[in-house]
Amino acid sequence: MTSFTTPHLKLTHAGALQLLTAAVAKATAMQQPQCIAIVDDGCNLLAFLRMDGAKVLSEKSALHKAMTAASSRVPTGNTAVDLETRLALATGGQVTNLKGGLPIVVDGHVIGGIGVGSGTGDQDREVANAALAALAALAGARTFE
Amino acid sequence: MTSFTTPHLKLTHAGALQLLTAAVAKATAMQQPQCIAIVDDGCNLLAFLRMDGAKVLSEKSALHKAMTAASSRVPTGNTAVDLETRLALATGGQVTNLKGGLPIVVDGHVIGGIGVGSGTGDQDREVANAALAALAALAGARTFE
Amino acid sequence: MTSFTTPHLKLTHAGALQLLTAAVAKATAMQQPQCIAIVDDGCNLLAFLRMDGAKVLSEKSALHKAMTAASSRVPTGNTAVDLETRLALATGGQVTNLKGGLPIVVDGHVIGGIGVGSGTGDQDREVANAALAALAALAGARTFE
Amino acid sequence: MTSFTTPHLKLTHAGALQLLTAAVAKATAMQQPQCIAIVDDGCNLLAFLRMDGAKVLSEKSALHKAMTAASSRVPTGNTAVDLETRLALATGGQVTNLKGGLPIVVDGHVIGGIGVGSGTGDQDREVANAALAALAALAGARTFE
Repeated sequence: MTSFTTPHLKLTHAGALQLLTAAVAKATAMQQPQCIAIVDDGCNLLAFLRMDGAKVLSEKSALHKAMTAASSRVPTGNTAVDLETRLALATGGQVTNLKGGLPIVVDGHVIGGIGVGSGTGDQDREVANAALAALAALAGARTFE
Repeated sequence: MTSFTTPHLKLTHAGALQLLTAAVAKATAMQQPQCIAIVDDGCNLLAFLRMDGAKVLSEKSALHKAMTAASSRVPTGNTAVDLETRLALATGGQVTNLKGGLPIVVDGHVIGGIGVGSGTGDQDREVANAALAALAALAGARTFE
Repeated sequence: MTSFTTPHLKLTHAGALQLLTAAVAKATAMQQPQCIAIVDDGCNLLAFLRMDGAKVLSEKSALHKAMTAASSRVPTGNTAVDLETRLALATGGQVTNLKGGLPIVVDGHVIGGIGVGSGTGDQDREVANAALAALAALAGARTFE
Repeated sequence: MTSFTTPHLKLTHAGALQLLTAAVAKATAMQQPQCIAIVDDGCNLLAFLRMDGAKVLSEKSALHKAMTAASSRVPTGNTAVDLETRLALATGGQVTNLKGGLPIVVDGHVIGGIGVGSGTGDQDREVANAALAALAALAGARTFE
């Protein structure tokens, strides 16, 4: 029988604040201020914080990293070089291959994405993953090494 | 205990096609071609059809009606006059008070919105509601008189 | 004698739905959910469907593939490397060289374009061509290998 | 003597999170989920949260309320009727006269703005002011009745 609806999970704002708090703690420990964006699985903004000293223009790249990870369901940074510019141009910059975007996965549901920007790509990704690790401890979110 | 995720329903593409088909049938019976847009609860496009003879520029208004209904969770057309222009301007036209947008509600979950445009406001709304009635028969969607 | 009008063919919404249905069938068989966009020869949206599990951000790239194919009258993906970025930038991303866009050609008339996105470029193109094959069987549309 | 720099205060991310937390507490007590945006005095986003059940499309209006209040240094909602549409049009909707935006003022410095949206204008403003009251208790921020 055809199904017209399907069950899904949504990230709550409590969950989003938890991710934000854990990302800030990690970035503070690393002494690298960050912009942190969290979107739902529809790529709409759920939570955002720009830390003291983070780059103003990283707001947009952090957001686009979060959107890309939520949409593609994999970490950003692994797209083939010949594809990434085309995808960025075709989507008005929303799809980015900058490192630092990770999907938020709970119980097999992709419920959003987190994007971090202002440090190096590796620092950004480390902060994003630390946030997921905090959610993993509380709600079983998947992390990425 | 704080909850970091919450269960939700999603509209499937089969459900979206069902809505589209029912809207086309109603618009055909009324001899008023229409643009029909269906968005999910994140206001992202799920399905669209512009019928033969429908207005090209109604694509955008149909989309914005669907987005407004999905976001506000009530039919479009009832906002106070002094508010509607402000809301439209503050959202780049995404929030509209044109008649013809209805939320898609199943089991108490708002899972999206349908927006219809190209006829009069009353015709648009009649077609949107006929689509919901078809989904109601199959999946218990709520209709609006 | 100078002629002030010229006969043309237009794709109907029945034709667009046929393309959509065939694309969904192929994508389902390939187990690769897709975003499918169909535009007329004015590059205006005629029909769209985002399948369950397709990428949200592929809505825009699928649309731009369809627009590019309808406008250029050839499949996307073959523009010279030194041109493609310039064309994308000059058109705000509407012209894309991502694979997966095909012109809809009937009786020598380019009557629109179909764009598919969410899989690999080859998968996207395969689905677009399967849709054209279904229209070819019914209305003599041209396919592309 | 001409002075080439002038001392200024900046809102920290700790202050922004404090505003966010207080706004969430008030909105929860009122049982009206809200979108809450906090910008600095350059109108750049510092912090954002969309609460469970808040309208997706209120993200943009909450942001514009915050920007308008930070820029104009007065609460939104008091612009003369004949001016407000012109201002909105001239700024692409960034200047809004929707209620719910308040400047963040500490020691006579306007250090940003808070914008709240998803409820009625009065509810939005009440939540924004409750957030300022929490900051007033801690850092002497000005409130608006």
